[in-house]
Amino acid sequence: MRILLINPNTTEALTERLAASARMVLPPDAELATVTARRGFAYISSRAEAQIAGAEVLSMLAEKAGAFDAAVIAAFGDPGLSAARELFDIPVTGMSEAAMLTALSLGERFAFVTFTPRLAAWYGEQVTRAGLGGRFAGTFTPEDGFSDIRNVAEDLREPLLRTCLTASKTADCIILAGAPIAGLADEIAGGVPAMLIDPVRAAAVQAAGLCRLFPAGASHGSFARPPAKPSTGLAPALSRRMSPPEQN
Amino acid sequence: MRILLINPNTTEALTERLAASARMVLPPDAELATVTARRGFAYISSRAEAQIAGAEVLSMLAEKAGAFDAAVIAAFGDPGLSAARELFDIPVTGMSEAAMLTALSLGERFAFVTFTPRLAAWYGEQVTRAGLGGRFAGTFTPEDGFSDIRNVAEDLREPLLRTCLTASKTADCIILAGAPIAGLADEIAGGVPAMLIDPVRAAAVQAAGLCRLFPAGASHGSFARPPAKPSTGLAPALSRRMSPPEQN
Amino acid sequence: MRILLINPNTTEALTERLAASARMVLPPDAELATVTARRGFAYISSRAEAQIAGAEVLSMLAEKAGAFDAAVIAAFGDPGLSAARELFDIPVTGMSEAAMLTALSLGERFAFVTFTPRLAAWYGEQVTRAGLGGRFAGTFTPEDGFSDIRNVAEDLREPLLRTCLTASKTADCIILAGAPIAGLADEIAGGVPAMLIDPVRAAAVQAAGLCRLFPAGASHGSFARPPAKPSTGLAPALSRRMSPPEQN
Amino acid sequence: MRILLINPNTTEALTERLAASARMVLPPDAELATVTARRGFAYISSRAEAQIAGAEVLSMLAEKAGAFDAAVIAAFGDPGLSAARELFDIPVTGMSEAAMLTALSLGERFAFVTFTPRLAAWYGEQVTRAGLGGRFAGTFTPEDGFSDIRNVAEDLREPLLRTCLTASKTADCIILAGAPIAGLADEIAGGVPAMLIDPVRAAAVQAAGLCRLFPAGASHGSFARPPAKPSTGLAPALSRRMSPPEQN
Amino acid sequence: MRILLINPNTTEALTERLAASARMVLPPDAELATVTARRGFAYISSRAEAQIAGAEVLSMLAEKAGAFDAAVIAAFGDPGLSAARELFDIPVTGMSEAAMLTALSLGERFAFVTFTPRLAAWYGEQVTRAGLGGRFAGTFTPEDGFSDIRNVAEDLREPLLRTCLTASKTADCIILAGAPIAGLADEIAGGVPAMLIDPVRAAAVQAAGLCRLFPAGASHGSFARPPAKPSTGLAPALSRRMSPPEQN
Amino acid sequence: MRILLINPNTTEALTERLAASARMVLPPDAELATVTARRGFAYISSRAEAQIAGAEVLSMLAEKAGAFDAAVIAAFGDPGLSAARELFDIPVTGMSEAAMLTALSLGERFAFVTFTPRLAAWYGEQVTRAGLGGRFAGTFTPEDGFSDIRNVAEDLREPLLRTCLTASKTADCIILAGAPIAGLADEIAGGVPAMLIDPVRAAAVQAAGLCRLFPAGASHGSFARPPAKPSTGLAPALSRRMSPPEQN
Repeated sequence: MRILLINPNTTEALTERLAASARMVLPPDAELATVTARRGFAYISSRAEAQIAGAEVLSMLAEKAGAFDAAVIAAFGDPGLSAARELFDIPVTGMSEAAMLTALSLGERFAFVTFTPRLAAWYGEQVTRAGLGGRFAGTFTPEDGFSDIRNVAEDLREPLLRTCLTASKTADCIILAGAPIAGLADEIAGGVPAMLIDPVRAAAVQAAGLCRLFPAGASHGSFARPPAKPSTGLAPALSRRMSPPEQN
Repeated sequence: MRILLINPNTTEALTERLAASARMVLPPDAELATVTARRGFAYISSRAEAQIAGAEVLSMLAEKAGAFDAAVIAAFGDPGLSAARELFDIPVTGMSEAAMLTALSLGERFAFVTFTPRLAAWYGEQVTRAGLGGRFAGTFTPEDGFSDIRNVAEDLREPLLRTCLTASKTADCIILAGAPIAGLADEIAGGVPAMLIDPVRAAAVQAAGLCRLFPAGASHGSFARPPAKPSTGLAPALSRRMSPPEQN
Repeated sequence: MRILLINPNTTEALTERLAASARMVLPPDAELATVTARRGFAYISSRAEAQIAGAEVLSMLAEKAGAFDAAVIAAFGDPGLSAARELFDIPVTGMSEAAMLTALSLGERFAFVTFTPRLAAWYGEQVTRAGLGGRFAGTFTPEDGFSDIRNVAEDLREPLLRTCLTASKTADCIILAGAPIAGLADEIAGGVPAMLIDPVRAAAVQAAGLCRLFPAGASHGSFARPPAKPSTGLAPALSRRMSPPEQN
Repeated sequence: MRILLINPNTTEALTERLAASARMVLPPDAELATVTARRGFAYISSRAEAQIAGAEVLSMLAEKAGAFDAAVIAAFGDPGLSAARELFDIPVTGMSEAAMLTALSLGERFAFVTFTPRLAAWYGEQVTRAGLGGRFAGTFTPEDGFSDIRNVAEDLREPLLRTCLTASKTADCIILAGAPIAGLADEIAGGVPAMLIDPVRAAAVQAAGLCRLFPAGASHGSFARPPAKPSTGLAPALSRRMSPPEQN
Repeated sequence: MRILLINPNTTEALTERLAASARMVLPPDAELATVTARRGFAYISSRAEAQIAGAEVLSMLAEKAGAFDAAVIAAFGDPGLSAARELFDIPVTGMSEAAMLTALSLGERFAFVTFTPRLAAWYGEQVTRAGLGGRFAGTFTPEDGFSDIRNVAEDLREPLLRTCLTASKTADCIILAGAPIAGLADEIAGGVPAMLIDPVRAAAVQAAGLCRLFPAGASHGSFARPPAKPSTGLAPALSRRMSPPEQN
Repeated sequence: MRILLINPNTTEALTERLAASARMVLPPDAELATVTARRGFAYISSRAEAQIAGAEVLSMLAEKAGAFDAAVIAAFGDPGLSAARELFDIPVTGMSEAAMLTALSLGERFAFVTFTPRLAAWYGEQVTRAGLGGRFAGTFTPEDGFSDIRNVAEDLREPLLRTCLTASKTADCIILAGAPIAGLADEIAGGVPAMLIDPVRAAAVQAAGLCRLFPAGASHGSFARPPAKPSTGLAPALSRRMSPPEQN
């Protein structure tokens, strides 16, 4: 099976980091390709940026989805996830949702640990949207700042470890949230008495599993494909995907 | 105070219909201007369309917000609402949210009545997102089809009335959801034993009220303006709004 | 429009303080009159006092409601609010509910800050009753005592500011709860990174808005006027309001 | 132990009916006395009436509580219950709450069956207030009218039985709600495949049990007695109960 | 009435301690007998142990239930409770559930205090299972260790008192959870500003009350007795209880 | 990877049916072995039977777990699931939980469809226990009876199809609950406008995925292995698994 990892951020180095982590857990019959956003932001960190990136995710999927069996939206906050599920004929997974569902199969309560309090409310909204508040122990962040988003995992390694220790007092599972700290779970797992979930791995494994169970992805009910519809001003591939044949 | 009504649909006739309804309830010191989306869909009716329209709402606001004291996003489902609150220095309201909050001040439970079951799940997600499930009596729709989205309010008048009668068995307030039926509340109110809420009026009154209480809109906490940030490929006004000065 | 501010406490100085704050945000076509409870307590601060005050609110409204277009119950905890909505033909708002609904349109989570822990449980019950627990960050109070209820806003200004700083770590909006600290929001807003909501202002703006949308107030469903009914021992105006014509 | 059954309605015949039902389940060491409201309504059936009756309950308790070991507020909707718990030094129980808690110890989900849809919303609010929505299957009522509130149990016996059969499809326990149908449970139990709870019996048994466990009733935390406080215009016994010694 | 106290732990000394505490609150017409598990663990403290003990509870009840009017499962966590209700023709109560329901009739929010953090998650699951999360203030434990499970109440008396003081900041009622600290409530009640609930007493009083209201216990709806069914390898008494007559 | 499918029912034919369905979706590097309960019931259909079967699951796992990389508990209702997670060093999944988590990644709301109303309450409790009530559309069952549990999928094929059509009005995903109808999803999927989830497949795919992510299964927090502890009367393998070395 061919899985497409879509990085909604415009930073290619991040795409590689995420893909490398995901590839470590894929089943033998799966291969992972990547695509990086050309429009948007180096690193999404607000609701406004996610709104814009989510639309760009749809454009990227419209260009590429036909060649893949599943897709992973590789930004915490899952920009465009439910829209993508509605529109494309393959399973689509997201880092936040996959990490939370993985946590639900491993422990009673889960927490988010991330690198800046600025992201806490937005991340918390993912929990509400998913209706999982009853299993959520909160978002925990270090108080320390960092010098550069590219070095967060290194700069904040000790503070993040301490934050995980705090979170593990009330949570069985800790989700290390935010693409810049992908891979950190392996490094600190030995020091934290909780299960540490790396979201991109959870999303990749979930995508592979859904391929076996529902190769057409979300396809019915409120996720049935919306009727074709003319549009104005969309990127060409997306316009074609959404339009009735006569408009193409 | 100057209020901007933003129609995220590309249908200008709908803009006028909504604005006319909203103007009937504005306070004497408020005036309402309108803008209609140039990109997107004649009428948004899926999550995917809302994702795209929400990004377009941000572009429209980036062009216009400086000249207004408040803005109303005039599509049920509130595309772009929380992103807009985060980004702009004026109160921004949305039809779904304003209608729900109005309902909470008039009765114990509210229902949505809309013209097609296709919209029910997406509308229900607004309730979950807002954490208001405990006050929600459900979404009710007629089983009848309609010939043309532009004539829904007329074609389905009788079925919608019957649907409202059903909804009023469990709901004190009924929100007539979906821009195509704006204005219907006045026409059928006499025949329904529930309070009928016209969402665009609720959103306009809420915008005027927030102007008096919080002229800068949502401005703190997780809605503090995100740090300026370079971007790629955005509409010029939106890029300028989000970028650091040196990029402009 | 004529709005009646009802102070369920017997302290006239408080009535003036609240009315002054409310008048600062009323629309140009609204005027505000006041009435102060003649029965009850100088300052309501328990469930038992609220039960008694709520009945008195109904008596006050029975005497005055005919001359007004809307009413505001000006005590946190909203004594008599749902009963008043059921009984009178105008919109009635309450400080707790209006403050919470305003918070929902400005941020993701709200907190109460008040001047004594004694009120925390009773205030928290307003959140439960309204079904808004999913958006609630808790009630925060200073540990400091105060010399006199009339000077609370002055005596506790610094401790309340510190308490607001704590609350703003988890809440986007802070509701300054309790009539004795009405007006404090303006004074400390500059020092707190959250939106500070003054409940009496929220309630006044909401009353004005509901006048435009639903001049008859809550009028249907479970808030339809109860059938006229004989009564024993009620205040004359209230007895007349509730009784069948023949008993009057 | 001496238990006081307080009927917040002014109908003495109802008091007797309720007391007779309660006496059938009291333990051998308990005796039950009664008091009937002198102010208020023949039968409480709205939020406004409950607000007034709740204040009267406090007056009745202030006169009588000293001579009793526990009290039962014998009207569904529990007017004045939390206020009474706060104010008096004995356990106080209410019909709605006791019936719900009994249901929780017998089955997974409970329903209310009552004689008129008019009461459904108000009764449902008791569930919300108690935070028990997750165990609630709804309120069910017959569509048939009745000739006289005093004959409801007889007039509606068949329709109520049919309503119970419907409710038993989703509920393990059915609470026969409303004082006018006290005693009906025994008569129809054989025909309904659910446990039928008679609220006044549940409240009496709960009162007797709390006497053994907590003879001072709710006495701490947010139910600690409020500080004594001067008041104006209250019934003498209630004023004395709430006032500081010097005022008496 | 004859009540059977079933200790699912194999420690007889614990049985006596629990029975002595329960007897102090039984009504005059109730007597309490005991039975101690012969299979299982000296003290249940994990989900796995509770799973095994719950099956043993059914065996004990199958042997004894015929001679009793009610039964109390005397281990916090209520092993086997809902299974026992389904299977036997008498009321069955459990310490966790009875303590929580008692708390709901005395205060707004309740907390658990127990002697080791290891039990917190398992105890918290009882709250979720009962749907009472909205009234729950959390589980609080001392940080101190203890030398021997048999001396916990003595070894940890001071730390438990301090923990109760912390818990009483947010909870009106504190449930002293875990059989090893049965009886502690009386000793420290004077020093804690909250109502302290001793679970075995709550369960005994509830059992006596249910005997008066529903002598057949949970008997209908989803708790109707399951159809008789052949089984393999069960303890003889349990096999007889569950099997069709021909298999016996 | 070697996955063990544990059938807690004693019917070997059912084991084969479930294994055959699961094998159709396993990844190429996974093989599935099975074990069937020797103690218990031909088909578990009550809480009491599940309590007993859950203990037997632990015994089976104690005998076999050492030779496997993951285990699937193949009975809806997941008897013994959280106990097994706590006790064994491999991932353990259950049919109810895995089906629900799969549903959450494919649609907004899920429903259960099963073959008899008798199971509805017990199945619904799985939803509550998992905290997923906000995404649950209910349990739907045909009214028709069946001749023999072994022929349910055939006897009730048409009624189950009709029931699925009803459920699909409010649910995006339908979980076909109960081992006797394993495999039915494939047969009727073409006729139902919802995603039909076969629980044993969901559980097998989840087990394979967890092997890649967390080979030691749930291992920390409240799922850390409980301390070794002497026991009385347990099956030898289980006793050895739980005991301290000296007792073995």
